[in-house]
Amino acid sequence: MTPNGSSGTIDNMMTNEMTASVYLAHPYTKSFNHAIYNRVLDTLERLDVTTYAHDLYAEDFNPNLTVRELGFDESEDSQVLKYAKELMASDLLVFVHPNWWGQPPAILKGWIDRVIRPPYAYDYPPEIPAGDPPLQKMQGKRGIVFNTSNTPEERENNYFGDPLESIWRHCVFGFCGIEMSHRRMFRIMADSDDATRKRWLDEAENVTEEIVRTGQVRKKP
Amino acid sequence: MTPNGSSGTIDNMMTNEMTASVYLAHPYTKSFNHAIYNRVLDTLERLDVTTYAHDLYAEDFNPNLTVRELGFDESEDSQVLKYAKELMASDLLVFVHPNWWGQPPAILKGWIDRVIRPPYAYDYPPEIPAGDPPLQKMQGKRGIVFNTSNTPEERENNYFGDPLESIWRHCVFGFCGIEMSHRRMFRIMADSDDATRKRWLDEAENVTEEIVRTGQVRKKP
Repeated sequence: MTPNGSSGTIDNMMTNEMTASVYLAHPYTKSFNHAIYNRVLDTLERLDVTTYAHDLYAEDFNPNLTVRELGFDESEDSQVLKYAKELMASDLLVFVHPNWWGQPPAILKGWIDRVIRPPYAYDYPPEIPAGDPPLQKMQGKRGIVFNTSNTPEERENNYFGDPLESIWRHCVFGFCGIEMSHRRMFRIMADSDDATRKRWLDEAENVTEEIVRTGQVRKKP
Repeated sequence: MTPNGSSGTIDNMMTNEMTASVYLAHPYTKSFNHAIYNRVLDTLERLDVTTYAHDLYAEDFNPNLTVRELGFDESEDSQVLKYAKELMASDLLVFVHPNWWGQPPAILKGWIDRVIRPPYAYDYPPEIPAGDPPLQKMQGKRGIVFNTSNTPEERENNYFGDPLESIWRHCVFGFCGIEMSHRRMFRIMADSDDATRKRWLDEAENVTEEIVRTGQVRKKP
């Protein structure tokens, strides 16, 4: 365990003083999502980053938010509390999931619904009027999202409007105060060959290392 | 039961020849979402529309798509098959849910993941290349989405990018061939008074009736 890393000081940290939470949401254990997840975990281990790793399907996570969790009381589910505390202790959050209907799989959507909650990731103290933005409590953290998709980029952006971009960058990260984030959609999975997949895994490793070390990904020349 | 209504002929139907599927996704039984759901069901009953009504929380729906459901085999879950067959037998689909993170609650996201699937709502016959749009099998159906939100319209549209609009209009309805749809976000729930809520319920009734009778909602003068 490391102390809460949300104070915005991680630019000056050694990588072995960092903590990460890494989440995988895919039901098939031989999926490319699993390969990305494992490569991310290997990279963080090489960099001496303390890591909370969660394969949500393997952990049989229940994504249905409860009535009690609608309010400000603590969740009655110890797993939700554990995830929320790990989240707040992490400097880096990594999510690996396929693009299903322009959204994460339900198991990860429910993780967002249940775990990103007051008084952890954000809060609404009484002085904040209804409809106003909340108190952001994830400022200074860094986010990475790796997605897989079978939709061509042109159709994703121009027809579907790439809702995953808004969802992660604004609705989740931005809402809670995370400004440093990187998202990469690997596509087209269905007809990708072994060489392409190997290159994608190398890219996932490089992105993870760059975000850990500098908080950003350098543009390729 | 009615025959499959996807042939685009419902403009000429009597309302008592129509079939609807109506879904609710909210855990709190006294929520405004429940009030909308009940008003929609009352309206459809008044119009003699045969209706499949599903309160997903009350039915304890499991939203986690299985490995088997990743492929083209039939789901092993009889509830998923039942929903899928009702969906294809319905001329009108109505979804009632709050805006959680720019997306539906996980229980409804998982309904989309598991129920809108081949060979029902869409299909990929072998001749369609990977990455191409599927065979759309919901053409001619009509869709209504009622949402509740605590986010002001300006912030929803200009900061979050209103991902629910893309998700329903393009990623779900458009993907499967549904062109006639209407979506209404009621806001701000948290500080709405009784008179406003009564007006919103009347609007939900009017929208439902107009979509049933004509397939579209008239602009107010």
